[in-house]
Amino acid sequence: MHIFLLALLPLAWAFQRPLVHFTPTRGWMNDPNGLFYDEKNSLWHMYYQYNPDHIVWSEPVYWGHATSKDLTQWHDHGAALGSDNVQDGIFSGNIVVDRNNTSGFFNSSVDPELRIVAIYTLNTPEEQTQDIAYSLDGGYSFVKYAHNPVLSHNLTQFRDPKVFWHAPSSQWVMVVAMSQQYKVQIYGSADLKHWVLHSNFTLGVLGFQYECPGLVEVPVENSTDTRWVLFVAINPGLPLGGSANQYFVGDFDGFTFTPDDSQARFMDYGKDFYAYQVFDNVPKEHGVVGVAWASNWQYCAVVPATTWRSSMSLARNMTLARRHVNPETEMLTLIQRPVLGSLVRRSNRHTGNVTVHTPLTFNSSATGVFEFDLTFKVKAQNCSTAQLQVLAGARVNGTLQLVRAGYDNAVTLFFADRAMDTEINKNPFFTDKTAAYVDPYAYDGEAPVFKMYGVVDGNVMEVHLNDGLGSMTNTFFLDGDAKPDFLELSSTCPGMYSVEYSVAELTLDST
Amino acid sequence: MHIFLLALLPLAWAFQRPLVHFTPTRGWMNDPNGLFYDEKNSLWHMYYQYNPDHIVWSEPVYWGHATSKDLTQWHDHGAALGSDNVQDGIFSGNIVVDRNNTSGFFNSSVDPELRIVAIYTLNTPEEQTQDIAYSLDGGYSFVKYAHNPVLSHNLTQFRDPKVFWHAPSSQWVMVVAMSQQYKVQIYGSADLKHWVLHSNFTLGVLGFQYECPGLVEVPVENSTDTRWVLFVAINPGLPLGGSANQYFVGDFDGFTFTPDDSQARFMDYGKDFYAYQVFDNVPKEHGVVGVAWASNWQYCAVVPATTWRSSMSLARNMTLARRHVNPETEMLTLIQRPVLGSLVRRSNRHTGNVTVHTPLTFNSSATGVFEFDLTFKVKAQNCSTAQLQVLAGARVNGTLQLVRAGYDNAVTLFFADRAMDTEINKNPFFTDKTAAYVDPYAYDGEAPVFKMYGVVDGNVMEVHLNDGLGSMTNTFFLDGDAKPDFLELSSTCPGMYSVEYSVAELTLDST
Repeated sequence: MHIFLLALLPLAWAFQRPLVHFTPTRGWMNDPNGLFYDEKNSLWHMYYQYNPDHIVWSEPVYWGHATSKDLTQWHDHGAALGSDNVQDGIFSGNIVVDRNNTSGFFNSSVDPELRIVAIYTLNTPEEQTQDIAYSLDGGYSFVKYAHNPVLSHNLTQFRDPKVFWHAPSSQWVMVVAMSQQYKVQIYGSADLKHWVLHSNFTLGVLGFQYECPGLVEVPVENSTDTRWVLFVAINPGLPLGGSANQYFVGDFDGFTFTPDDSQARFMDYGKDFYAYQVFDNVPKEHGVVGVAWASNWQYCAVVPATTWRSSMSLARNMTLARRHVNPETEMLTLIQRPVLGSLVRRSNRHTGNVTVHTPLTFNSSATGVFEFDLTFKVKAQNCSTAQLQVLAGARVNGTLQLVRAGYDNAVTLFFADRAMDTEINKNPFFTDKTAAYVDPYAYDGEAPVFKMYGVVDGNVMEVHLNDGLGSMTNTFFLDGDAKPDFLELSSTCPGMYSVEYSVAELTLDST
Repeated sequence: MHIFLLALLPLAWAFQRPLVHFTPTRGWMNDPNGLFYDEKNSLWHMYYQYNPDHIVWSEPVYWGHATSKDLTQWHDHGAALGSDNVQDGIFSGNIVVDRNNTSGFFNSSVDPELRIVAIYTLNTPEEQTQDIAYSLDGGYSFVKYAHNPVLSHNLTQFRDPKVFWHAPSSQWVMVVAMSQQYKVQIYGSADLKHWVLHSNFTLGVLGFQYECPGLVEVPVENSTDTRWVLFVAINPGLPLGGSANQYFVGDFDGFTFTPDDSQARFMDYGKDFYAYQVFDNVPKEHGVVGVAWASNWQYCAVVPATTWRSSMSLARNMTLARRHVNPETEMLTLIQRPVLGSLVRRSNRHTGNVTVHTPLTFNSSATGVFEFDLTFKVKAQNCSTAQLQVLAGARVNGTLQLVRAGYDNAVTLFFADRAMDTEINKNPFFTDKTAAYVDPYAYDGEAPVFKMYGVVDGNVMEVHLNDGLGSMTNTFFLDGDAKPDFLELSSTCPGMYSVEYSVAELTLDST
């Protein structure tokens, strides 16, 4: 067991460590695991694929563990669950709260709200099996079930269970990937120990393999309806992308997921959003909330790092809403809104309402973690090839190194651009530019109105478009340990854009 | 009508003009149209979306026209079909040979092999309709049908018909896109003038809109079977990609296309392969052959150009074959092999069989149009992070400007990389790097064997993997009017790769 205390590792906080994106105190991190909410202590738990001793993926893989009061300020507790053999790993999975002790792991001394069972993949050189473990101390340590595995098919590519309680059918439901057979398998169980196959699901872009499926009931905005959303990550296989997350909207009856249509849709249009998982046991007022790993298997092992590597995305709240995807078609679309928690403070805040003519520059006087929130109107159609953009960066060894995001009126697309002259940018998979289309948020007369919100945090930039309709999450790495120290808002066409802006630096209250 | 003769425009051949990829003599070009084979004259005809007077897309759009004896050496005849009003355009469509005069446009004076009917979209400010025209001179000029349109739904986004004769149901079949409703519509007709809707088809990644559907019967390798392949282009909407071409494999009974499965697959993993269309009336010995536009709506209007803009892809021969897409799954997969015709000559050819240790450099002594054909074996597993790559480029104003393609053993992916310090590379949509996974072509003991074939031609690089299993087509633009003048084969890990190589420069015999 490795329990790290932040106080002992002040140096580990250097090197472009994001502030509002979770990072491991030290070592390697990939997929989020075991996300759940502890109602008794009002505490969010996040586990994560973890190796404390390396900054590249390497067996034995542990579940690291972190907790948060607000989904943003995380306390890292280090490894919480490890394998019995160094050649094995505790691969991705999730946690459920077994209030009614269906598993029989608990007695009355364990508060029903803390009857925590982890379901995960045990990876061995011979096989991947689904195993379970329970915690008697609220999720800080685990006891493995004596009769593991609970699900085994003698396969080397069978992983990433996600289990939840399905009340209408009074059973636990597991979605799990037969990765290289492109099957999201759906199982049911009364006790988390015995599982029966209900159905298989395949759809969308298959790529090389399926990973990290998810299935969750999502509220439809402005209605009392819900629909089910099935998530599946592919890696590699997205053209130009490597790792990526798909989603499908449909019905789920406890046994079969029936998609509303046969289209393939993506959760994020950046390069660094993978293995998305939602929190279990979340009170209704928080809605559906999840986290993804903000990296890409194409280059996660080689991005600049010293003592730790990789961050999670911001938590995202999920709803469904009918939105135009082009002028002729409206459809039920996943709306993802980034969550910044109650411990986030905004300092050095600037707001205004201007027609962009000369660049507005905001220099860091605090953390250098910038949040921007723009609503802009494309006023002048004679500026047909104009761009509006937000730049962030720093002068490093005398050279400006910049990331940017913006809107290009010539092609009516948003872009995110991390091209710069650094070593990692020479990596043949560290694609510089990503793009996303979103239909206008609104119209002011003939003028389309768009919203662009973003957080630039150490080495990750998340850009969110039109209040949750689209996003691009990309990591970037200034040379040395530099982080952005200014943010600039500009347009290439004077008078084209009328902008309401709010720019602030984010800080975190300690807890 | 604009008839351009190459002989009059020698200067137009400068500026990075590709040699074995078709380019318009001058003006703007996008989608290939009206592709057909003239059996009487053994001549391939290609039409293309064209504006002779601009190098950006602009109404009135014409069909340009080119012919070839070998699918590589093209003779450009300029505009062949234009609209009656300058605000209108002749948008994409295709050509069929109406041997049996079902349309009634021909009398016995017209050879049955030259009874040519074009089906196209008339774009007006008010509407997009499907119109037809016929040619009495073998495809060099057209007479519009007096009672156009033949298909109209009072829609502004209804375009890109592709018609073919379906013998089993004795009818003409049209696939056409209701673009922003994401419908590939399938119609039938006895006479090319009256059309009845048979079915609608929607699948895959929808993006912003569907364009340029296609439907063709494709032979299955090593069998007498065929399957139908439905193509559809989306623009924008591929994450990171903008314009892209999807395909689906299934059955077609003359009325409904029934896909074998619900997966979405892509034809090319580069940024510049769009609006693919197959040739009609092709003799069986040529198989299924088609061409795409080698550009992307994200930046086609701003890439460097002087008097002409855009090229087509190489023609591709299409088959289907069962191939591994990962170690556990084999599936019927589109195999696309680039066609270099009988008029292509290879000069300055080097072949060898080496273990790469120091870079092999091949300097241009002829056209600078390089073809490379490698078969390599990943021998040494201790070179786990090694890359093998082909570089091509030139020294421009004292600086090396390079494109490259290769294989990275750390992530077992191929890459294509056009990152360089040029103005177009600063465009926020001109993504620098693309990637593709293909399962090994073969194994030599434990060592995976791969094949990488490519053509570097002026400003376009096509890379083809494992004999047709995958491809990446990307344009690139060296500064000034420079073209690559050398090609280099190298590996970052001495002894890792055993390579059989053939490198040559391509020239074209004149006809």
